[in-house]
Amino acid sequence: MASERIWTAALVVIGDEILSGRTQDKNVAQIAQWLNVQGIRLAEVRVVADREEAIVEAVNTLRARNDYLFTTGGIGPTHDDITVDAIAAALGVGVIHHPEAVAVLERYYATRGGATEARLRMARVPEGAGLIENRMSGAPGIRIGNIFIMAGVPHITAGMLDALTGTLEGGRPVVSKTIGSWVAESEVADLLREAERAHDGVAIGSYPFFRDGRTGANFVVRSPDEAAVDACLADVAERLAAAGHAATPGGI
Amino acid sequence: MASERIWTAALVVIGDEILSGRTQDKNVAQIAQWLNVQGIRLAEVRVVADREEAIVEAVNTLRARNDYLFTTGGIGPTHDDITVDAIAAALGVGVIHHPEAVAVLERYYATRGGATEARLRMARVPEGAGLIENRMSGAPGIRIGNIFIMAGVPHITAGMLDALTGTLEGGRPVVSKTIGSWVAESEVADLLREAERAHDGVAIGSYPFFRDGRTGANFVVRSPDEAAVDACLADVAERLAAAGHAATPGGI
Repeated sequence: MASERIWTAALVVIGDEILSGRTQDKNVAQIAQWLNVQGIRLAEVRVVADREEAIVEAVNTLRARNDYLFTTGGIGPTHDDITVDAIAAALGVGVIHHPEAVAVLERYYATRGGATEARLRMARVPEGAGLIENRMSGAPGIRIGNIFIMAGVPHITAGMLDALTGTLEGGRPVVSKTIGSWVAESEVADLLREAERAHDGVAIGSYPFFRDGRTGANFVVRSPDEAAVDACLADVAERLAAAGHAATPGGI
Repeated sequence: MASERIWTAALVVIGDEILSGRTQDKNVAQIAQWLNVQGIRLAEVRVVADREEAIVEAVNTLRARNDYLFTTGGIGPTHDDITVDAIAAALGVGVIHHPEAVAVLERYYATRGGATEARLRMARVPEGAGLIENRMSGAPGIRIGNIFIMAGVPHITAGMLDALTGTLEGGRPVVSKTIGSWVAESEVADLLREAERAHDGVAIGSYPFFRDGRTGANFVVRSPDEAAVDACLADVAERLAAAGHAATPGGI
C-alpha cells in the first residue's frame, strides 16, 4: 500500500474578482471533491491576477510537478479574458480559432444574435488543443497536454467536470470518515497524534468548532485504503472513550 | 497618479481541509476585503497542504515579493498544526514559547480545565515574533517581520483582522463601482475594451450571470482614484446607452 502511485492535480484560479474579495470562489471545493472521486489528489492551488506573467509563472511551475493542471476563469469574450493567450505563451505555442469550437459557437448563437467577432474569441485555443464539452452554455473548455482550461462560473465548470468524469487516469479515491466529539481539540491532541502514528498511511485532521455555546471538534481520517481508515477510526473512538469523551460516528 | 506606490499582500491558506474539498474557504474573500480598506492589494493566494516543504516554499517566495504576507490555518494544538514550525524553518529561526502568549493562555484556560501542555503549544512562536490579539478565543495570532500568522476559523481570523485595522501602512484604498446591464457580455466586449483604454489606471472587470432565465453582466470599474472611476463609469454608461442597452448603476 505504501508504494501506491499517488496522482496529483493543481488548480490555478484566474481572476481579479476573487483577489478583490468581490466574488467568493466556489471552484476550489468543487474541483477538489470531483478530483477525489477520480482518485486524484488536489495538491496545491494558486489564485492569480488577470496578468499574463502571473498566469505563465503559475501554469509552468504547477504543470511540471503535477499529473494534471486545471485552470478556472478568464475564458470569456471580454478584454479581461486572457487565459488562452497566457497559456499559449506558457507553452510557447500560437493561438488559433478551433474549427469545432467555431462550429459550436455558430450553432449556439444562431438563435441568439449571431456569432460575432467578440463571441468567436471564445473559439480561440492554444495550437494543438482539444475541446471539453460545455453542457451549460456555448463556449467549450480546452484541453492541451495535461492542462484543463475551465470556465470561471461554477455551474458551467460543473458541466465541464461532468463531461470529463471517468476520462482521467487516477488511483484509488481517498476514503475519508469522520468522528466528532463535544471536546476541545486541545484535550485530545495527544491521543490523535498517537492514533495517527499507529496507522501507516492514514492522516487524521482535527477541525474544531464552536456551536450552540459549546466547543467541539470533528476528526477526519483519510487514506485510499478503506480498511486502514476503519481501523484508525475505531482506534480513535476507543481512545476517546477511554479518556471519557462520548463520540459521534459520522461527525457532529 | 500613475506613479503612486501600490502596496501588495499575499495570502497562504494552509490546510488539507480546503484541498480535500471538505471545507469551503472563507478567508480569501474576508482578507481581500479587509486589505482593500487598508489600501493594500491582495496580489496572490496559494493554498498549500499541511506539509512543511510546501509551506516553506510558498512563504519564502511570497514574503520576498510582497509588502505583507498573511497565512491562515494550522495554529491550533493538534499534530496537524505545523504552521509555526514551518514558518520558523522558512525564516531560519528557532521556536520559543512566547511569555505573553503563555500568560494569555493561562488566563483563558484558568476556568476551562487549565493550560495543559497541548494547549500551551498554541503559545509557540518563531523566535523574534510579536502577538496579534485574539478577541474571540485564547490563542493569539503571530506577527514576525512582514508575516502575519492568522487562525483558520474565519470568525477568529475576523477578530484578529479587527485588532490589526489601521496598523499597516498602505496606499489609497481601491474604489470600485459597478454598473449592470441585461446584456450578453459578448455584445459589449468592444465598448468595454475601448472604455478601459480611454481611462488611464482604471481596470474594468466584466462578470456575466444567468438569472431568472436571462443573461446579464455587471461591469466593475476599479482604481484608487475615485474621480477616474467616476469618469470611466460615466463613459461606460454612455457607450451602453449609445448601443441601445439600458444600464443599472450599482449593478444588477
